Amino acid sequence: MTKEDFFTLVNQIQSSDYYREPLAFAIAKIDRGQKDPDKILQATYAFINWQENFGSAAIFQKALAEAGQTISQESEAVYEVTRAFVDSAIAMCSPWLEEAVGEAHKNVQMIKFLSKLDEEELADFRVVFLFEDAAPKSVESVYLKLYALSTGKAPLRSVNLNGAFGVLPNVAWSGNTPIELDWLRENELELKMTGQYPVIDVVDKFPRFLQHIIPADNTRILDASKVRMGAQLAAGTTVMPGASYINFNAGTLGPVMVEGRISSSAVVGKGSDIGGGASILGVLSGTSGNPISIGENCLLGANSVTGIPLGDGCIVDAGIAVLEGTKFFVTQEDFGKIKEANPEWQASYKEIFKGRELAGLNGLHFRQDSTTGQMKVFRSNKEVKLNEELH
Amino acid sequence: MTKEDFFTLVNQIQSSDYYREPLAFAIAKIDRGQKDPDKILQATYAFINWQENFGSAAIFQKALAEAGQTISQESEAVYEVTRAFVDSAIAMCSPWLEEAVGEAHKNVQMIKFLSKLDEEELADFRVVFLFEDAAPKSVESVYLKLYALSTGKAPLRSVNLNGAFGVLPNVAWSGNTPIELDWLRENELELKMTGQYPVIDVVDKFPRFLQHIIPADNTRILDASKVRMGAQLAAGTTVMPGASYINFNAGTLGPVMVEGRISSSAVVGKGSDIGGGASILGVLSGTSGNPISIGENCLLGANSVTGIPLGDGCIVDAGIAVLEGTKFFVTQEDFGKIKEANPEWQASYKEIFKGRELAGLNGLHFRQDSTTGQMKVFRSNKEVKLNEELH
Amino acid sequence: MTKEDFFTLVNQIQSSDYYREPLAFAIAKIDRGQKDPDKILQATYAFINWQENFGSAAIFQKALAEAGQTISQESEAVYEVTRAFVDSAIAMCSPWLEEAVGEAHKNVQMIKFLSKLDEEELADFRVVFLFEDAAPKSVESVYLKLYALSTGKAPLRSVNLNGAFGVLPNVAWSGNTPIELDWLRENELELKMTGQYPVIDVVDKFPRFLQHIIPADNTRILDASKVRMGAQLAAGTTVMPGASYINFNAGTLGPVMVEGRISSSAVVGKGSDIGGGASILGVLSGTSGNPISIGENCLLGANSVTGIPLGDGCIVDAGIAVLEGTKFFVTQEDFGKIKEANPEWQASYKEIFKGRELAGLNGLHFRQDSTTGQMKVFRSNKEVKLNEELH
Repeated sequence: MTKEDFFTLVNQIQSSDYYREPLAFAIAKIDRGQKDPDKILQATYAFINWQENFGSAAIFQKALAEAGQTISQESEAVYEVTRAFVDSAIAMCSPWLEEAVGEAHKNVQMIKFLSKLDEEELADFRVVFLFEDAAPKSVESVYLKLYALSTGKAPLRSVNLNGAFGVLPNVAWSGNTPIELDWLRENELELKMTGQYPVIDVVDKFPRFLQHIIPADNTRILDASKVRMGAQLAAGTTVMPGASYINFNAGTLGPVMVEGRISSSAVVGKGSDIGGGASILGVLSGTSGNPISIGENCLLGANSVTGIPLGDGCIVDAGIAVLEGTKFFVTQEDFGKIKEANPEWQASYKEIFKGRELAGLNGLHFRQDSTTGQMKVFRSNKEVKLNEELH
Repeated sequence: MTKEDFFTLVNQIQSSDYYREPLAFAIAKIDRGQKDPDKILQATYAFINWQENFGSAAIFQKALAEAGQTISQESEAVYEVTRAFVDSAIAMCSPWLEEAVGEAHKNVQMIKFLSKLDEEELADFRVVFLFEDAAPKSVESVYLKLYALSTGKAPLRSVNLNGAFGVLPNVAWSGNTPIELDWLRENELELKMTGQYPVIDVVDKFPRFLQHIIPADNTRILDASKVRMGAQLAAGTTVMPGASYINFNAGTLGPVMVEGRISSSAVVGKGSDIGGGASILGVLSGTSGNPISIGENCLLGANSVTGIPLGDGCIVDAGIAVLEGTKFFVTQEDFGKIKEANPEWQASYKEIFKGRELAGLNGLHFRQDSTTGQMKVFRSNKEVKLNEELH
Repeated sequence: MTKEDFFTLVNQIQSSDYYREPLAFAIAKIDRGQKDPDKILQATYAFINWQENFGSAAIFQKALAEAGQTISQESEAVYEVTRAFVDSAIAMCSPWLEEAVGEAHKNVQMIKFLSKLDEEELADFRVVFLFEDAAPKSVESVYLKLYALSTGKAPLRSVNLNGAFGVLPNVAWSGNTPIELDWLRENELELKMTGQYPVIDVVDKFPRFLQHIIPADNTRILDASKVRMGAQLAAGTTVMPGASYINFNAGTLGPVMVEGRISSSAVVGKGSDIGGGASILGVLSGTSGNPISIGENCLLGANSVTGIPLGDGCIVDAGIAVLEGTKFFVTQEDFGKIKEANPEWQASYKEIFKGRELAGLNGLHFRQDSTTGQMKVFRSNKEVKLNEELH
């Protein structure tokens, strides 16, 4: 089989009846329950395909068909990896076997890897296909979507994770290994009294980001507990270990200093600094369901709370709370400067603006006047880099 | 020996001179010092008996007596587990040996387990009795009391732990293993230069909750460092990894979202939400020694500080501090609504109430007015579920 | 060789041409890159010499010279440990070999240890000399300086660490072991699909304090992630696991309760209490480059922010921010009392002082008036223990 033959074959498959173009696909290694081996506790991917590599998708689907499996018409499908599947796939991949090393042809590398395993070992692998971005139905598909977010292949907030909490089992994590709580209970006496009780780091449905993701060379995460799987950290982001936390479906779009909390659905632009203990609220905590974006080059002071979206170059002073209902005084002069920095803002001057009326504006500086206790908003003295595509 | 014989025997023991009804008892596995093997560093229980299972207590006391030991007249006693003790106990437990599996007859399961060990292995086990709730005198009794709290067998604040800090040694924890600091010092050169220096996770007198306790299936602890042994977490509680912490003798009475700090002696009612970085003060930090209870369905905003007890359905806005001396304005109208929600509150209207005057009331909403800086209290718009037993 | 011969020899070396008195020296075990074994990832010291033990320095330099190496004229030097070096050193140390145990003659103990290793094992050791406190140029010298700070041999802020971030590689830490990110990337498929992917605790340039330092018996660190290598903790300090963090070149000068953040360059005096979530700002975050010292017996309330230096006996109320530009009202009466507690303070009465004007004063109590929102400063009711050397 030549490479030309391979491309011809792929075209044949893709125009065949059974082929379905996937949103995403990948091969997972699964962790099974210690008590109930049919319960899937975790799915680990060495890499995933997200709206890409449709040639490999075609080959995998043909190999599944040849192994006697039917391509599902559901939104997702999880298939066992059989000897027949591997034999069929590796035969079709033969033109690429030699050059499938390093960064090249990762799907072929995976097939090569599988071809060396015996039946018993293969039983812990799965071929996973997502055909639509529907609510995930399996542990394998939830993990595939979390990988899409955490590898940056899918933008934050772009993936349907509805019901993921119901799909994932709550487990005890000992390092990278998930353990059924029921198994611990059943074996508690023996494990404890023989000194073999495992070290439990976490009890949660989600694993930690660093269990599955290798960050960029200039990204730093000073405590693995601080970033949940499904978060997205742009290169150059630093996460300090004090009061920080980045939940799944939340994160950064460029180098950001994170010493505070980025709640699920919140996104922070490049060059911003989330001070120690600063809180960016999530959709479930006081933002009326609006996910919060923080622009570029913003500074959220230590122990501040931000409950509205901010544009670029904003400052929230240390220790204050900027919420939708908070009332901010503004002078006529600063109002003018704020309009200059936000040419598209349609507003007339008034003495007091509520937080929600200031949502998303550039160049704001929020402060509590220490002589009167009044909350005020000024034009910040930070450089505002306007988004060139919009202005 | 039949089951009937067993019950007759228990009755005989319980009416004998040497029998003392215990408050609690259990068999512990101990960890010894690496340098000083006579120093007890930790006591691990597979389960404990707390005001229960007095039949087993009787059997254990008779087995101790037959092994030549005298039942102490002190508030607590720690006995070595000898071959004679085990042989005597297993003989008396013979009617139950077969059915002692799973959740049934845990004390008999323990005796069965011990019966398989040799002398050297038995040397690391202890029979521990508490006869009164006095200040604990041994590592074994401190741990027994911490287990009572963390398993929920004893209510929070109900157990005498006076002097526990003096009894427990400060050790380096490597996973579940306590290590003497002096042993590390003496072996530092060899350990470090051969690459065998242990991974130290914690240096503390207390272990972590998850080293000893298996939480309920719907309880989640996203970082083991966040909950100290001796805390109590009701089923359904979630502890996030940002700025949270739950100290010993503190915790939750129902499903609670914990993203802040629950200091020692503080208790939070079901349905409440402790926001990111929120602090509930403990008896040693600004509460005049009054332990703080937070009622049900309360919301403590991000980075708020609460230094007074709260009733049900209260709201503390993000970023503010509600302390005993904080002065809160209230309107006559809201005062009326607050009285309605608290029919037993004996107070006449005045414009300003101090925090300590509002302690324990239901349905309060604490806020700083963003236009004046004044602290104010309103009737919250949260549903207040009054405690039916009191009202 | 007798001890007298030894001292004569040391004198000869020290007056020789090649001898250079070091600022510091020590022997390190190095960790190499998994992918690039020439890349040094970490240097571990069992102990270090800092402005001390010049006799051993002389012996090491002579042994290096005899092994064919030249003593550097640079600010620092890192030498391989060869068989010739070890043989030469152990010969010169012979009068001390027997008594070099426990706390005695640690440099000789190290030579004894090295003398038992083979060539391949010796390849992972280095002799490190600092001759001046210049910007560090090697991983080994950065670590030597971090050890000087963390062991308390050098005072905080006294060591030149300029450029350390550029010298240290960013690595994934699995326990005490640093792992190259590139090596993880290259082996991701094999590691993950065989269940051998390492547990990654941290991705950072710096290790954790507890990977290298054994704290005092009465020091407690409830979570290893909370203290970075290069921090300094005086005996009796307790670091809680909630929202605390102590960065490198920051720490405590006596027993301190730490539940908040001590940023790089910040120092806290004995008897002070850094409340839950309290932030002490660092030179890079709002202090105009002035490092912050907190005096003795201060209390920084929960979720407070301190951006100015404080003297002894100060109180910052929970939840407030004391920054350089914050304006504080003071009464004439309190102004008088504050002058009494600060006899050297040259100031005349005015109604409002900015934070920066109050920097370093003793006995201040910072508060926000809950009835007006005004920030105020009072004479605190805490006992101020004046520094006897200054007053």
